[in-house]
Amino acid sequence: VSAADGQLLREIEVLDESGARRALQIPVERPLTISINGRELVTLMTLGARSELLVLGYLRNQRIIDSVKDIKSIRIDWATGSAAVSLRPTANEIKADARHQVGTACGLGTVFGDLMMRVDAAPLPSAGTARLSSAALLRILEIMREYDAIHRAAGSVHGCALFHGADLLASIEDVSRHNGVDIITGWMLLHGVAGADKTLFTTGRLTGEMVMKAAHNGVSIMVSRNGVTSMGYDLGVKLGMTLFGRAAKSRYLCYTGAERFDRESDISG
Amino acid sequence: VSAADGQLLREIEVLDESGARRALQIPVERPLTISINGRELVTLMTLGARSELLVLGYLRNQRIIDSVKDIKSIRIDWATGSAAVSLRPTANEIKADARHQVGTACGLGTVFGDLMMRVDAAPLPSAGTARLSSAALLRILEIMREYDAIHRAAGSVHGCALFHGADLLASIEDVSRHNGVDIITGWMLLHGVAGADKTLFTTGRLTGEMVMKAAHNGVSIMVSRNGVTSMGYDLGVKLGMTLFGRAAKSRYLCYTGAERFDRESDISG
Repeated sequence: VSAADGQLLREIEVLDESGARRALQIPVERPLTISINGRELVTLMTLGARSELLVLGYLRNQRIIDSVKDIKSIRIDWATGSAAVSLRPTANEIKADARHQVGTACGLGTVFGDLMMRVDAAPLPSAGTARLSSAALLRILEIMREYDAIHRAAGSVHGCALFHGADLLASIEDVSRHNGVDIITGWMLLHGVAGADKTLFTTGRLTGEMVMKAAHNGVSIMVSRNGVTSMGYDLGVKLGMTLFGRAAKSRYLCYTGAERFDRESDISG
Repeated sequence: VSAADGQLLREIEVLDESGARRALQIPVERPLTISINGRELVTLMTLGARSELLVLGYLRNQRIIDSVKDIKSIRIDWATGSAAVSLRPTANEIKADARHQVGTACGLGTVFGDLMMRVDAAPLPSAGTARLSSAALLRILEIMREYDAIHRAAGSVHGCALFHGADLLASIEDVSRHNGVDIITGWMLLHGVAGADKTLFTTGRLTGEMVMKAAHNGVSIMVSRNGVTSMGYDLGVKLGMTLFGRAAKSRYLCYTGAERFDRESDISG
């Protein structure tokens, strides 16, 4: 556990069922209030390991920004739990305003009402461009078993990671599955990484909003350790995405989009 | 599976890792937009099994209403996914307005920024009033294993239940752990059931907001199948609550408030 990780975990003393005292690690979440040009937008709870990327990805996935160029600066101040975002005077001020309104209708951990209306806005790569082999999928599951350090130490967090074939590009753990995909989005945006030939792994459920966030970033293949909801499934089908769930060890289910999946092929194929 | 349950689940066809086709049940979530006196407040995603209770509990836990008396009517229309709430002309209109503002700062699946400030507002029963025996706790875990019908059939949902000792009073499954506790809250409000001597079970994590919702309804004992976050733990300690986590089969951890817990006592004791 590095110095940075030390701030993500805290040790408490608990009693187990035998009455014995035990030390237990728990994740340390912090409120982070994002404001745009001085106007409060939202408060997210986060471990805070990648707060700039979280802010970047959140703004992109809420469609307030299109690229990093839309941002003049992001200042994180943990003393006040604030992320002050300064946007360039492009069309984004208006977008931020519009978003501020939509923000009033946000559910807790859920999708926005206009989710299904946005479907047509996300063109995804053809099955020719984005493919995944069963060997790569199994390797992804193997890698992710080793990358859930906080989950294993403390539980109560979600993991999210981006792969190119079986190559891990970026991974993160945070207190919500939404933060995870937002941080990966921020990483893609910052590094100019396109989603077309990538696979997004999450430990969280494939709900409508999670699937939408992947699609919005051009990612057409998602793998979840968890399940799918009807809205996530419907969106995946409508967008022509490839969704895997219940994926752990050597087991998985392909919910939709099997045309992108090469079974029993070589990892390089 | 009853007729009502049939609307909560849907069957899709998936491919498993051996390439075999399989029928799979998935939970069917629907958007439900709550408006108060004609003004849009929030959109929740829900299975819709207990939507009136969900609306009632949501409004109570967001502190827009104090009791059912504050409500003139709730009209649910699934064709438009809307819950039209009419409030009585008491002080609540103002509260609803205030809440509408705070609503813009809501996190996805997370707590509100002013959570810690509300702590002093929730007086909880003494350890003398609210107690739980280890026998009752084990019985609760046994009962909850049998009550997660949708979870077993389809996964991707959270369960929540209210107990008096080892007696199950109400239970619900929905797509978010927040909906679960909101629905149980609505049930308590509708039936005039006080939280003082009750235990709230949830399959979800004990985050700050979950702990706060229990406390707001006078419930001082919580049991989670999952873990705790630092904010949930801190709130529990500060409020003098009793929190159990990682509770399944015959195992559990007591995070805080062991003074309310009677180990190895009789279920009636």
